[in-house]
Amino acid sequence: MVHYRRTHDCGTLRKEDIGQKVTLSGWVHRRRDHGGLIFIDLRDRYGLTQIVFDPDVNRDAHRQAEEMRSEWVLSIQGEVIPRAEGMSNPKLKTGDIEVQVLELSILSRANTPPFSISDETIQVNEDLRLKHRYLDIRRGTVAENLQLRHQVTQCTRNFLDRHGFLDIQTPILGKSTPEGARDYLVPSRVHPNSFYALPQSPQLLKQLLMISGVDRYFQIATCFRDEDLRADRQPEFTQIDIEMSFASPDDLFPLIESLIQEILSKTKNVEIPAPFPRLTYDECIERYGTDKPDLRFAMPLVRIDDIAKRSTFTVFQDQLNAGGSIKAICVKGGADISRKGIDSYTQFVGTLGIKGLAWMKLQDSGLSSSIVKFFSEDLQKELIEQTGAESGDLLFMVADTPERCNQGLDHLRRRIARDRQLIDENAYNFLWVTDFPLFAWNDDEKRIESEHHPFTSPHHEDIALIDTEPLKVRSSSYDLVLNGYETASGSQRIHDSELQKKIFETLQLSSEDIYEKFGFFVEALQYGTPPHLGVALGLDRIMMVLCKTENIRDVIAFPKNQKAVDVMTQAPSAVAEEQMKELHIKSSAPKELTWT
Amino acid sequence: MVHYRRTHDCGTLRKEDIGQKVTLSGWVHRRRDHGGLIFIDLRDRYGLTQIVFDPDVNRDAHRQAEEMRSEWVLSIQGEVIPRAEGMSNPKLKTGDIEVQVLELSILSRANTPPFSISDETIQVNEDLRLKHRYLDIRRGTVAENLQLRHQVTQCTRNFLDRHGFLDIQTPILGKSTPEGARDYLVPSRVHPNSFYALPQSPQLLKQLLMISGVDRYFQIATCFRDEDLRADRQPEFTQIDIEMSFASPDDLFPLIESLIQEILSKTKNVEIPAPFPRLTYDECIERYGTDKPDLRFAMPLVRIDDIAKRSTFTVFQDQLNAGGSIKAICVKGGADISRKGIDSYTQFVGTLGIKGLAWMKLQDSGLSSSIVKFFSEDLQKELIEQTGAESGDLLFMVADTPERCNQGLDHLRRRIARDRQLIDENAYNFLWVTDFPLFAWNDDEKRIESEHHPFTSPHHEDIALIDTEPLKVRSSSYDLVLNGYETASGSQRIHDSELQKKIFETLQLSSEDIYEKFGFFVEALQYGTPPHLGVALGLDRIMMVLCKTENIRDVIAFPKNQKAVDVMTQAPSAVAEEQMKELHIKSSAPKELTWT
Repeated sequence: MVHYRRTHDCGTLRKEDIGQKVTLSGWVHRRRDHGGLIFIDLRDRYGLTQIVFDPDVNRDAHRQAEEMRSEWVLSIQGEVIPRAEGMSNPKLKTGDIEVQVLELSILSRANTPPFSISDETIQVNEDLRLKHRYLDIRRGTVAENLQLRHQVTQCTRNFLDRHGFLDIQTPILGKSTPEGARDYLVPSRVHPNSFYALPQSPQLLKQLLMISGVDRYFQIATCFRDEDLRADRQPEFTQIDIEMSFASPDDLFPLIESLIQEILSKTKNVEIPAPFPRLTYDECIERYGTDKPDLRFAMPLVRIDDIAKRSTFTVFQDQLNAGGSIKAICVKGGADISRKGIDSYTQFVGTLGIKGLAWMKLQDSGLSSSIVKFFSEDLQKELIEQTGAESGDLLFMVADTPERCNQGLDHLRRRIARDRQLIDENAYNFLWVTDFPLFAWNDDEKRIESEHHPFTSPHHEDIALIDTEPLKVRSSSYDLVLNGYETASGSQRIHDSELQKKIFETLQLSSEDIYEKFGFFVEALQYGTPPHLGVALGLDRIMMVLCKTENIRDVIAFPKNQKAVDVMTQAPSAVAEEQMKELHIKSSAPKELTWT
Repeated sequence: MVHYRRTHDCGTLRKEDIGQKVTLSGWVHRRRDHGGLIFIDLRDRYGLTQIVFDPDVNRDAHRQAEEMRSEWVLSIQGEVIPRAEGMSNPKLKTGDIEVQVLELSILSRANTPPFSISDETIQVNEDLRLKHRYLDIRRGTVAENLQLRHQVTQCTRNFLDRHGFLDIQTPILGKSTPEGARDYLVPSRVHPNSFYALPQSPQLLKQLLMISGVDRYFQIATCFRDEDLRADRQPEFTQIDIEMSFASPDDLFPLIESLIQEILSKTKNVEIPAPFPRLTYDECIERYGTDKPDLRFAMPLVRIDDIAKRSTFTVFQDQLNAGGSIKAICVKGGADISRKGIDSYTQFVGTLGIKGLAWMKLQDSGLSSSIVKFFSEDLQKELIEQTGAESGDLLFMVADTPERCNQGLDHLRRRIARDRQLIDENAYNFLWVTDFPLFAWNDDEKRIESEHHPFTSPHHEDIALIDTEPLKVRSSSYDLVLNGYETASGSQRIHDSELQKKIFETLQLSSEDIYEKFGFFVEALQYGTPPHLGVALGLDRIMMVLCKTENIRDVIAFPKNQKAVDVMTQAPSAVAEEQMKELHIKSSAPKELTWT
């Protein structure tokens, strides 16, 4: 039987080990035949070690080494020796030594891989990488991401364990409650015409755990949404799901902040300050035009309605009279942006439906642009003061509906930050956004709907408004924004069954609807429900930020492509007639449509 | 806004805290109205604390306390005071103190629960418990099981992390490979006539992770089997899934033994010895008649063919001549079993198809029974020696086919152990069973099939037998048995694609079959596969043993009942026509069959 138990991995040997007899196992990374000697970089997950085949030491092993190809799997016994004078490789942890091969076992041969394993700088078509995901992982980057993901989840679990949270699994085979996104369904064999649904989140179950007295729950939960995919979406995704009783956001926020500090400190060696800044939804929209601003750079939106009103610029005044608003951003040092540059930004906001982009440059001589003349000296001074502009800066102004104004300047702000490289790629900037509206108006169906979900608690100060001005009711909800991404979302939940009923009534849900969809939950609320709240952190999203990738597939071992296909295993695929029959279903699609 | 942030939980306060002002929140467990004073046991997950309402301290709170019912949720502020002389409750951790209520908030009222929360000794119908699982958990036992489960998984993860294993999630939406059990299927919306399958185990994916160089993988993985349910089965179940490269059972066994020692030590304060005993499959069947013997008691099976052959007992000799065998067990102190007792055991083995149960009692005067006369003095002495019988013991003997002999005595052995209370309920007895047969004969289909799965490596000594005597080939596989339950199963995997092909050929799989089912995997094997092996531990099963329950539902937060139904949420259930249409499926069952 072949011997392959390692004494060391391929990343471990150092000068101090010289003279030791070792056994290494790994893959042929690169092979160099120097006439007499053959050098192989032997690779495993932990690193590379140079091994040397010398015909004077083991003629047979040397002859076998002549035939070796990339990605063969070897086990060797040998002696650690120093590298020849001047041949050390400081880029390699094991670069001071090499291993003189005494005995060789070839454990597996390898066909030529469809793409290079040893040179990851070579671009490879993503579907080809996914088809051979096991080789793609072997190249290194994805393996490192998976290792970091392991560290993050490990760190998260230990943190939450220390804080008294219990890791409790909730079922994957759940009930279909078609609110929000589309469910994945699983036909029941035992019960014809019945289906399980894969959970979009463990929301109701974690609330039931609070009702059951579990007090503090967490789960790193797989969730499912059958939606059309984008670059940062997958049919199944993972959330760090947390719920706690007898607590408020003032308990939860510091907890999550500590968790994130610990993750960053332990896995990235990055220390970040806490508490994280907080903005209400209204403040956030006012200042950044979005509820998920990237705070790695400043450039806030400044409302200049008041100044515009007193100017003689009719474009601005017409907007104001039509209920619009005027907002500005100040581009630091932006006076160097050319006329062509300004035109391209004008075109950019044009794609968002905004008709014009006003601008002014501030130089030592004062403001300049074609519209400066509409502003008196005093108004110019006010404008400079309110926007914080200094000599060399550029002001952009948008006059439009409040929504378009915000949307346009949010996009413009981010575009400019990218163009002018204002973003510190190593920064982690967090922001809590709180007090989202409880309800939204669904203009298609002409009815009020929940902004988040119907179990979100209204802000306690706004409960009286539910009957009179429901759209003004704030919720006790919060998002955590990281570098412009929503990375967590949560809320205080309703624990009062009377209040829950009122919310359902406001949503115009019939008691039949309620019973059908949430009956078990509404009943549970009536058996003694503690105040509770929770949050779900998007693990994949967090990993994307930590791994500095914009492709969610880079942080998942075996992802689906953008057509929801696992191109490696070819799932989904056709199944036997017999399987469908047992599940009491048949296809309603013409055979020609079959995809595999 | 109501104040409910706790200063302490309900299990924490002690004599040392007397005089402190505290805030407690929890459920009304029991309420006693003593005329003047009202006492309430306030409960949370951490314990019970007695709180006292005194009308002279807060008249309003006392009046509210008069109305309180079980399971209302309260938050109180109060002062920790000593219990009155002689009123301490030593059974309660907080039994020395009580809290004098100064301020009261009623957080939720509660309807009368459908079963008692405070008295768990009252038997409740299981479906009713499951319908109100949140109340069932609140009673205590299930909550404790869930807490222990959390500790076990936490301990497992930390152990494996320390040993360099990476926790890697594999997809839930996988490919259907209808080997072994029935798959749960998920129709694809995007690809008509195509289905995902929920994984029965991450077997191939974890092997692919080894091919990808991950080296050491683990996952606490949810797995799915659409099989008819028994008391210890659920549609979804959890396994601690482990795989490692460049290693052999001699590396894996000590690792798993240390893991289990650590789990038992940290969560149950139980120290168990290692290494665990090992038996080959053949030895195990010979000695215990089963491949999962309960070793909390001895009573091995002893083959007495040789003695029987030399006796004059024709029943035994006829069996031997027909290819059968004779085995005995020795019941320590069993001479006290009455004739009636013996008859009932005879009847018991009769239900397994065994025609007779021979017996002999050993007393100081020697062996006695109606068949002793067929055995010479010398043979009697040999019998006593081989079975290790002592005065006061009883021997049972079965003569039948080898299979029935083993099965009968295995059942009888366990039955007697239960009847005579030979089982130490606090013991944890582990056993490795190794070298299972690689193939089994499928008599229905008249062909060879894999005993485990087709990726299991044959025993290296037996590879030459594959062509000539395949049914004699041992595999490099192993089970871990705990107290008579199979709690883990694994094997060395095939890493040589030529050997893998040979196995497929022996299984008479056509290349089409192979390509269709495992094509991607067979291809992967050819790109440089390290030797690897792994194991999967049944977490639910382990939890059942640790929680001392024979009901798998007791160790799962929201289980399905034996009809695969979540009676709380009523899943599975009917879905909207629209949902089915989007998935390109329609029902093939008559409407009348609809279950919900």
